[in-house]
Amino acid sequence: MFKKILIANRGEIAVRIIRACKELGIKTVAIYSTLDKDALHVQLADEAVCIGPAKAKDSYLNEKNILSATVLTGAEAIHPGFGFLSENSKFAKMCEQCNITFIGPSYENIENMGNKSKAREIMKKANIPIVPGSEGIIKDSQEALKISREIGYPIMVKASAGGGGRGIRIVYDEKDLVSAFETAKTEAEISFGDGSIYMERFIESPRHIEVQILADNYGNTVYLGERDCSIQRRNQKVIEEAPGPIITEDLREKMGEVAVRAAKFINYKNAGTIEFLLDKDNKFYFMEMNTRIQVEHAITEMITGVDLIKEQIKIASGEKLDFSQEDIILKGHSIECRINAEIPSKNFIPCPGEIKYLNLPGGLGIRVDTAIYAGYEIPPTYDSMIAKIISYGKDRDEAIKKMERALDELLIDGVETNVDFLLEILNNKKFKEGNFNTKFISEQLGYRS
Amino acid sequence: MFKKILIANRGEIAVRIIRACKELGIKTVAIYSTLDKDALHVQLADEAVCIGPAKAKDSYLNEKNILSATVLTGAEAIHPGFGFLSENSKFAKMCEQCNITFIGPSYENIENMGNKSKAREIMKKANIPIVPGSEGIIKDSQEALKISREIGYPIMVKASAGGGGRGIRIVYDEKDLVSAFETAKTEAEISFGDGSIYMERFIESPRHIEVQILADNYGNTVYLGERDCSIQRRNQKVIEEAPGPIITEDLREKMGEVAVRAAKFINYKNAGTIEFLLDKDNKFYFMEMNTRIQVEHAITEMITGVDLIKEQIKIASGEKLDFSQEDIILKGHSIECRINAEIPSKNFIPCPGEIKYLNLPGGLGIRVDTAIYAGYEIPPTYDSMIAKIISYGKDRDEAIKKMERALDELLIDGVETNVDFLLEILNNKKFKEGNFNTKFISEQLGYRS
Repeated sequence: MFKKILIANRGEIAVRIIRACKELGIKTVAIYSTLDKDALHVQLADEAVCIGPAKAKDSYLNEKNILSATVLTGAEAIHPGFGFLSENSKFAKMCEQCNITFIGPSYENIENMGNKSKAREIMKKANIPIVPGSEGIIKDSQEALKISREIGYPIMVKASAGGGGRGIRIVYDEKDLVSAFETAKTEAEISFGDGSIYMERFIESPRHIEVQILADNYGNTVYLGERDCSIQRRNQKVIEEAPGPIITEDLREKMGEVAVRAAKFINYKNAGTIEFLLDKDNKFYFMEMNTRIQVEHAITEMITGVDLIKEQIKIASGEKLDFSQEDIILKGHSIECRINAEIPSKNFIPCPGEIKYLNLPGGLGIRVDTAIYAGYEIPPTYDSMIAKIISYGKDRDEAIKKMERALDELLIDGVETNVDFLLEILNNKKFKEGNFNTKFISEQLGYRS
Repeated sequence: MFKKILIANRGEIAVRIIRACKELGIKTVAIYSTLDKDALHVQLADEAVCIGPAKAKDSYLNEKNILSATVLTGAEAIHPGFGFLSENSKFAKMCEQCNITFIGPSYENIENMGNKSKAREIMKKANIPIVPGSEGIIKDSQEALKISREIGYPIMVKASAGGGGRGIRIVYDEKDLVSAFETAKTEAEISFGDGSIYMERFIESPRHIEVQILADNYGNTVYLGERDCSIQRRNQKVIEEAPGPIITEDLREKMGEVAVRAAKFINYKNAGTIEFLLDKDNKFYFMEMNTRIQVEHAITEMITGVDLIKEQIKIASGEKLDFSQEDIILKGHSIECRINAEIPSKNFIPCPGEIKYLNLPGGLGIRVDTAIYAGYEIPPTYDSMIAKIISYGKDRDEAIKKMERALDELLIDGVETNVDFLLEILNNKKFKEGNFNTKFISEQLGYRS
């Protein structure tokens, strides 16, 4: 097992990883930008190294400085968390070249799955159900037109290097395809430096169901149930839950087995998530694979009792999974709410600033993953997510009630948050019934999509 | 079910009860002394009523003001928490007379079990194993001398109305008995207004093992496993854990059945705890019954999944227990550390004051029950316990590691706490082995007993 790990991230996920390391008896090195010198992850780690100025590209994305900090502190491995360098195959390769363990899959895995059209091709070869679409990159708008007639409308035009909802256009009618293709291409070039575009049939009002997997270096791959992440605003997850409210035992097993088969096909290692679209007929299609730990991993931990971060570290250090598929028993229900410092009434613009008063919820069935404290100044530079509230109950109804109670208890002065927006969702009749899809927030609550 | 409950308490237990009520959809009324106007329980309840000045006797023990507040706010029931009026049979009777439900057992139960010598007599009748001792109250020191020869030394001289370790003397030799009897009697008269004294054989270096029970109004009584509360300083619990590290399945069942038999014998209702002494030969003796929820109830909740406060409320409202003994399955291991604002190096004197900076622990397997926040001023008037940190792991080792990590994360500026003292216990080899008894802190760590 490693003796020291450097955590190449900030905020709650850095704190989350420090926790796992402490419980495993591993020393931790935090990195921080000049803006983050008072951040909680810096206070909680055994060591902390400033790796650059505020802008992410100069600090949390500064590969060379991060590798230098790792070598300098004698850390043997890097945990990248999510975001930042977590899906950067070049960085994973640099780690390997420096003889530092990257806690995650191989850089080939990251590269192949990070390229969305390549991932589709691979999954097709593996016989994983995929949404009908183009084979690889589309040359130009004329080829797009031709292919669109084979796929059938509505069609989704997608940037190959995309993510987080950017570089996507939905086209309902052939007459709009050419302009959609061109704007998506331009947006992709600007956002990702890569204008490659592919197309898929657009599945209307699907559920977003994702399957968590773990794979060690010895061929053992398991799935840990699914998460329903359909409650999204502009393709950003807002509330997630596990298990999925409409997923039957049978469907769970099917999706789980497909996810494991996909992972095995690419010889995947470590934790990963296969995201599926589930249509109205409960048919599911591979959407993409996230080759890292996810924001919403905690709800899977609550219902399985498996600490995913510890498993990531153990796998990376060469340990075998010490459980098999039959040992994974789902118990109870868990919901996660992402608490953002933002102003819902002003189109959700971020609301950074100093937290003047704070009461975080607690008690039975409530888990809080956060890095904020009273007196902390939320910087405007990074993500607006400031906490994750995770509830656990014996069933969905209890998990919802606990979440409502927890949000009620969350008192923050100094910045605005999305708590009332979250309560609006939780109180919605259709949400309570488990009757929703990815259009819920725009169609049921009337927020701009 | 009740529509509104008044919580006749303060601090973390008041917050704990508010949480249960919110999850059950019940409105809450907080009461507070003038000193507590900024307390968290006041902020979190639906309504709050000031019931008197700082001193407990004028506010939290002011029965008439509390009953007036209950009637005025239209609350139908009172939850007394622990301490204050929770074991005051007179108050429970007053509630009944005012047609207000006292969430707890009958006042006869409270009265009978509150009187320690009477409780002994009753348990003897019920054929519950008790420590050899006097039958009822001892008239004077001469009678004490006579009885002591029958019981055998060492002997414990105890105030019948005692509690919390006060009014107790241990006598190893006959020559010291008379003076011990007289001083205990005087102390009992001053502390409790009742100088009744009884005596028991003193069990040397026992474990303190207690069994949680729940009983509804329809004859259903169950036990929810045991708690090992042997880690005590001056008879005050410091760290508790469930299940007990040396309790076998067989012993658990025996103690559980005895506890249920004791409760049934007195027709007990609601939540209660039977405290036993366990000697070196694993023989156990009834010590006392606590006719209320206990500080350490949370660890039982963690390993059983049963919300004891909700069960108390449901039972008091006339609901039947919706599970039976076979449904109670213990899973994992839980430890509670009581965080006190006190100075261990100065003989643990309380350390009230303003909390200037605060980071409470969180994450997977950590539950925090507290009512403090950054900016809160801990008053000098009440108990020095400011938080309970509860860890949960798949086994004892993991629960200990999680607790160590959580205590490491607990950052408080402004007041001193016992965190280092708790870490000293957790890091002790004998503690880690589960090899300890009620003398651990004095004998192993060398603190004054």
